[in-house]
Amino acid sequence: MKKYTIGLDFGSLSCRGILVDTSDGLICAEAVMTYPHSVLTENLPDGTPLPADFALQHPRDFREALETVVKELVNNCPSPENIIGIAIDTTVSTVLAVDESLIPLCEKAEFAAHPQAWAKMWKHHGATEMAKRVEQICKEQNRPYLDLYGGSISPESLFMKAIEAFTRDRKVYDTTECFIELTDYVTSLLAGKPIFSLPLMKAKAFYDEKLGYPDAEFLRAYHPDLVTLPKKLTYAFKDRVIAHPGTKAAKLCPEMAEKLGLPEGIAVSAGTADSYSPILGIGITGAGQMIMTIGTSTGIMIMSDEPKFVAGVTASLPDIYYAGKHGYASGQTSSGDALGWFAENCVPARYELEAEKKGISVQALLTEKAERLPVGAGGVMALDWLGGNKSCLANPNLSGLFVGLTLTTRPEQMYRALIEATAFGARAIIENYEKSGVPIREIRAGGGIVGKNKLLMQIYADVIGLPIMASRCPQVPALGAAINAACSAGEYPDIESAVRAMSCKDFEIYTPNPENHREYEYLYAEYMTLHDYFGKGGNRIMEKLRGKI
Amino acid sequence: MKKYTIGLDFGSLSCRGILVDTSDGLICAEAVMTYPHSVLTENLPDGTPLPADFALQHPRDFREALETVVKELVNNCPSPENIIGIAIDTTVSTVLAVDESLIPLCEKAEFAAHPQAWAKMWKHHGATEMAKRVEQICKEQNRPYLDLYGGSISPESLFMKAIEAFTRDRKVYDTTECFIELTDYVTSLLAGKPIFSLPLMKAKAFYDEKLGYPDAEFLRAYHPDLVTLPKKLTYAFKDRVIAHPGTKAAKLCPEMAEKLGLPEGIAVSAGTADSYSPILGIGITGAGQMIMTIGTSTGIMIMSDEPKFVAGVTASLPDIYYAGKHGYASGQTSSGDALGWFAENCVPARYELEAEKKGISVQALLTEKAERLPVGAGGVMALDWLGGNKSCLANPNLSGLFVGLTLTTRPEQMYRALIEATAFGARAIIENYEKSGVPIREIRAGGGIVGKNKLLMQIYADVIGLPIMASRCPQVPALGAAINAACSAGEYPDIESAVRAMSCKDFEIYTPNPENHREYEYLYAEYMTLHDYFGKGGNRIMEKLRGKI
Repeated sequence: MKKYTIGLDFGSLSCRGILVDTSDGLICAEAVMTYPHSVLTENLPDGTPLPADFALQHPRDFREALETVVKELVNNCPSPENIIGIAIDTTVSTVLAVDESLIPLCEKAEFAAHPQAWAKMWKHHGATEMAKRVEQICKEQNRPYLDLYGGSISPESLFMKAIEAFTRDRKVYDTTECFIELTDYVTSLLAGKPIFSLPLMKAKAFYDEKLGYPDAEFLRAYHPDLVTLPKKLTYAFKDRVIAHPGTKAAKLCPEMAEKLGLPEGIAVSAGTADSYSPILGIGITGAGQMIMTIGTSTGIMIMSDEPKFVAGVTASLPDIYYAGKHGYASGQTSSGDALGWFAENCVPARYELEAEKKGISVQALLTEKAERLPVGAGGVMALDWLGGNKSCLANPNLSGLFVGLTLTTRPEQMYRALIEATAFGARAIIENYEKSGVPIREIRAGGGIVGKNKLLMQIYADVIGLPIMASRCPQVPALGAAINAACSAGEYPDIESAVRAMSCKDFEIYTPNPENHREYEYLYAEYMTLHDYFGKGGNRIMEKLRGKI
Repeated sequence: MKKYTIGLDFGSLSCRGILVDTSDGLICAEAVMTYPHSVLTENLPDGTPLPADFALQHPRDFREALETVVKELVNNCPSPENIIGIAIDTTVSTVLAVDESLIPLCEKAEFAAHPQAWAKMWKHHGATEMAKRVEQICKEQNRPYLDLYGGSISPESLFMKAIEAFTRDRKVYDTTECFIELTDYVTSLLAGKPIFSLPLMKAKAFYDEKLGYPDAEFLRAYHPDLVTLPKKLTYAFKDRVIAHPGTKAAKLCPEMAEKLGLPEGIAVSAGTADSYSPILGIGITGAGQMIMTIGTSTGIMIMSDEPKFVAGVTASLPDIYYAGKHGYASGQTSSGDALGWFAENCVPARYELEAEKKGISVQALLTEKAERLPVGAGGVMALDWLGGNKSCLANPNLSGLFVGLTLTTRPEQMYRALIEATAFGARAIIENYEKSGVPIREIRAGGGIVGKNKLLMQIYADVIGLPIMASRCPQVPALGAAINAACSAGEYPDIESAVRAMSCKDFEIYTPNPENHREYEYLYAEYMTLHDYFGKGGNRIMEKLRGKI
């Protein structure tokens, strides 16, 4: 008898779900729903204008997507009674302010016009100033958080988003029972009680298994009233469960079972991050295997057997991906996003027309043209920091750069330069790991761009100088969630066994071209000269132009 | 009785002519003709392919334009018998190889497939390598040319274009009777005998009134056979006249008088450069008055009473614009060209559509949008060296740069950043003069962009911090030629008087906005930091990306 689990991947703009055979990970059904409200950046639904840097979402969208996607998967399942578990992953640092019944404050009439009461998306940057203050307190009190989080405090984290509400809207803060990660919010809805995912608490909420949340001395340094914060994270909830993804955190509650058409009481795993879940889906089981998830941004994860100090990573935490391994996370803020920006804003009508005639996208056309260019894009070089630099330099106020422009420069040269710059940026991250004692012996790549842009993948291999195993499965994150679900349902003794059995096996291998690699060595050195000059204080014009210093 | 002169301005792509009342400079008729062959960059007319960096023109185009434009002016003249003189200006460093009857070699069947036998346009860059060698010889032999020509030998000059023919095609070199500037070629056709313009010989052909052309020792250092070169410049011609523009160099020869419908024997002035002629047309008569001619590129000229050493100018020569004054020339290689490149290559279809709907050009739309942006283009900065840097740094292998790009950067920000960068570049040139003891007390501006882009003019005033007198006359170069013609016909005792009476009087004054000027002070300092880092050896990536080092 076949058994199935459901894996759901809540991304920035849509939720994708899959129904998976637990014996081999075969995807039996897929479903997707785009969030009706997308991202709120200009106004709240009632018209309240939003400041710059705000990016909010409507919590109802997540519940609708959950119901719609799961129902469709159940409808397409040959035997829904054999679905044995469900698990989710979501964008991480998307944070909701909820009451004790898990109702988001923004859905109460009195808070509808309060921006802080809405779901603050990962890329919402309302806490930039506050994060600087917290960073200072960490230094003054010699706290370990800077080391854990790569040398700086991200304004995106749940911890900072809660402090943002405290600072900007005390009424929202006081009324909030819990500031909760999206992944925990949706999992808690499934379980009918609060479920918190331990790795995310450690990665994003300043939580330590032994020490708990930051103590009163630390919080008081920010503001005397902030000592109430830990109670508003996970402590205050009755019956709350803190669990690792892949363990059985809870059972599906009767109300949700009925609403979704699923068997009552099946396993609900703790949720995970959409950046962690591909680790499982793509088949990583130990140290030295790097995963690059290349989409709008790039997530890079690796593990080591022993913990090492690596400067400029976004996280460095024990047991975060696998028990017994030290896990690191790095990221590039804009890879696909930068290419998308370019295609949207910097390509003339004659290119759009040519693409239309060929029946391909503008980016596909640019890629075709860029492919015919030599290594080095015919003399154009870029810095890939259009969304700031998250790793190595950990400075959100850096920006993008083009150099080498002449009166004969064509758009495909700038496009290729952006791809090359993103590859150089990835290599900088890899070299940073290696010189810190975290060796890389294998690179696996997943994410939206991997299947779409062969040129980009080949350039990555050529620049990095290692073969890249590019997953052909577009559902790697949801597959990771489905693996968690199978493991939490008891189908496998441990997560490694579940990963070996169920993960993606279908890869396209990109092997470095030795000649291109040699030429890229030279260009990479030039990239690093610019990188260090603009990124390490030689010239702080990027921060000045953004009005940040 | 009214008297008239004709001024002709041979530009890069067309010839514009005006008929002018000699009493007050009033323009009575205008005519224009575009060159049928435009610029040859890919192939010769017979299909012979051209190397990169080549830019040739067809000499027949100049003769056709001369005839067509003058005839139209004569047709529109109330009393053609009262036309008393004719003078021309042309792009300078556009060089023809002619035989002893002034017939261009390319018009002989045996040379039709020889690129070196064609008119080599100013922007033809076939002599780059040779110019480096000559520069080296100047240093080895401690010659004055580097000081005269701003510290480097331009591959564009007549002298270097002749050496290019010597080096690349000895048959063309040996057969050539004279390598001649376009302005001298056309003037000589009018006079029926060779007329050479003295200022251009000094500015572009290494000629000195006392010492003549470079001596044999200098030439031999390049190649023993090059000692023949001076004979191929102006010396070898019988009856040749060397004259200053504005003096009566010759009479219109009977053949041309008949062909053009002009009175026989009227005054023919020596020709001048299209960059010198606006000095007269715009009304400059002495030291401290700067002229900026802003078109595809920007020409900047100034005079001082005493000669001063100014580093990084393209020319520094006595008596070049006015007898008794020391004249300097500087230039920016790409001002309008850079904006044109941007509008052509970096602006999406939705902008082109919007411009079309509004019935304006893409650049006009970008300007409208850029006007609504604050000083500093909302955080984007550029280096304006898309065509290299001609003044201050004198390095053709520098390139353009954008910094400050983010995922929300819009095309109008980059466009405004380019305008601001061009203004910063102009200010760098001005400051270079002032610190060298050549003060600027007034700025007058002419050229194609001046009437078209008020935003650009205001930004120039705001950045530079001086009012700018923008000429409303689009025919300033041709007017300068017409002034030369009137003076050479004896209508005025000297060129200053002619300029005072006949030059443009219609200016729009752009006054610096004090607040903007203060903000630009700050941004200019940032520009100069980038300028010095990329331009003065801090990081030679621009030359590396162009494969030049």
